[in-house]
Amino acid sequence: MHIVITGAAGFIGKKLAARLARDCKIDGQTITKLTLFDIVEPEAPLSNGPDILTVAGDITDAGIAARLVGDDCGGVFHLAAIVSAGAEEDFDLGMAVNLEANRSLLEACRALPNVPKYVFASSVAGFGGNMPAILDDETERTPQTSYGTQKVIGELLVTDYSRKGFLQGCSLRLPTVVVRPGKPNKAASTWASSIIREPLQGDEVICPVRTSQAMFLSSPEIIVENMIKAWEMPAESWGMVPSITLPGLTLTVEEMLAALERVAGKEPVNKVKFVPDAHIQKICDGWPTTFETPRAESLGFSKDNDYDQIIRQFMENDMVKNS
Amino acid sequence: MHIVITGAAGFIGKKLAARLARDCKIDGQTITKLTLFDIVEPEAPLSNGPDILTVAGDITDAGIAARLVGDDCGGVFHLAAIVSAGAEEDFDLGMAVNLEANRSLLEACRALPNVPKYVFASSVAGFGGNMPAILDDETERTPQTSYGTQKVIGELLVTDYSRKGFLQGCSLRLPTVVVRPGKPNKAASTWASSIIREPLQGDEVICPVRTSQAMFLSSPEIIVENMIKAWEMPAESWGMVPSITLPGLTLTVEEMLAALERVAGKEPVNKVKFVPDAHIQKICDGWPTTFETPRAESLGFSKDNDYDQIIRQFMENDMVKNS
Repeated sequence: MHIVITGAAGFIGKKLAARLARDCKIDGQTITKLTLFDIVEPEAPLSNGPDILTVAGDITDAGIAARLVGDDCGGVFHLAAIVSAGAEEDFDLGMAVNLEANRSLLEACRALPNVPKYVFASSVAGFGGNMPAILDDETERTPQTSYGTQKVIGELLVTDYSRKGFLQGCSLRLPTVVVRPGKPNKAASTWASSIIREPLQGDEVICPVRTSQAMFLSSPEIIVENMIKAWEMPAESWGMVPSITLPGLTLTVEEMLAALERVAGKEPVNKVKFVPDAHIQKICDGWPTTFETPRAESLGFSKDNDYDQIIRQFMENDMVKNS
Repeated sequence: MHIVITGAAGFIGKKLAARLARDCKIDGQTITKLTLFDIVEPEAPLSNGPDILTVAGDITDAGIAARLVGDDCGGVFHLAAIVSAGAEEDFDLGMAVNLEANRSLLEACRALPNVPKYVFASSVAGFGGNMPAILDDETERTPQTSYGTQKVIGELLVTDYSRKGFLQGCSLRLPTVVVRPGKPNKAASTWASSIIREPLQGDEVICPVRTSQAMFLSSPEIIVENMIKAWEMPAESWGMVPSITLPGLTLTVEEMLAALERVAGKEPVNKVKFVPDAHIQKICDGWPTTFETPRAESLGFSKDNDYDQIIRQFMENDMVKNS
């Protein structure tokens, strides 16, 4: 089976590709080929079997979706997106990538001879506006960002294409994924990784939000686990709405730094300076932080044990020592 | 001010156009021009002032939105749509009209020199799936039809374009509008009008659903009233989500026919024959019927007094005597 991953140069995409290339199997089927697509050419992971095709391109180009998917595609993990602050800054780019490119991919999948799988990476950023203190599987989504709007629309499309039998799709609302390696990006949530990553790598870092700011978090390892689980889920298990919020951990900045201290001592924690940024704080104020996810849990999706383990995983798998 | 109405040959569009052409004013401003657009050329209503331009065209044509809106447009009432059963039957047409054409119109409005109004006719058909017995302003929408999906997406877009300041828009979820004149259409709800209209006009009619089937209803007069109210609503009154379910009346087929008997006697009621249609019944089974609409009511939107009055209004304004 041929599988396409968009956003394959991204943090989750890379880990997902590596896992599939290593496992060579998904849902009992042999993976013969992995097409890894992103705006920059993704690195090819070590493969235990599948042919790896890496493609750099613009997902908004006409015809790119059909070319990627080919005729032999068994399904797509659609992870490519313009992040929250990016989509807010450049509305047209956000619409083109987060809405239209998703639709083009769905159309390319619909045209396939066999009904393909489609796992769409959505986000809890779809929640917004007047929210209850604890969000659950029935909370209405009234997004207050273009990114959130585009993700909710994406879910609605995936659900309708699935209901029509054009594909077998599902949408997973990802918590904020920590700890990201590399550099800060344009996401308004980027500090959630930076305040752990930079100190561990020996650098000072600025936290732009207050210590009581909470965040709904997941490790990349659990996200990859859950994406594969979602692919393998029988269509009938989803019921009428193949869209869920994935389980996660809710922690305040204070609790994150306490975990950092438990795992790595006082020194890295001292490298975190607080310089409030009203713009970032305002965006984060609009985000939901506390979720109950009984539906995902009853479907068997996984959750991190604690934040200490998330930090240890980062140190083991992704950390780069600068000094 | 120049106002554009799409779907202006439709039942609501016609009444709205007639009302605006008669009033010559909206929100304290003089209406200088009305562009009435539809797939067939709309009739020009009697005008007390505004120039009336009637245009027949395909709303999915490239460039049509910008041509309609021109440079001088003060806003759009966007009523054009492919109805529920039509969008289910022809997925691509539904997507083109109900999703893409809405987006083209929004883009045309965004390009205007002044921030225009945008009143989008949405639908309670956006509700679906596992619903509570009574729906309210917080009920999540998990549509189970392509039409419903496209309407929810439309609302999300209108909200985001408004939040960005590209336009001042709002979405009104219309109850099923009764009593429609003319012929049955492709909407799965068409019987709700037919069982009143046909008997009153002297014809026999088939009711394809059970007598206990309930429906959430509004008269066209109240819808037009509420659309104008929505246009005139200050942006700040909406809060973060300029999207509401309009107030309506919930009645069963039995209650509708009882009202018909009260208004017009036994004879018309005897012309209603029950021939169950499993396909139509199944679609109707998926529709919500009972709503609480405190938000619309606190914003001052209107509601019909009772069904008897709706029937009387139809007899007065829209009925055609066949025999």
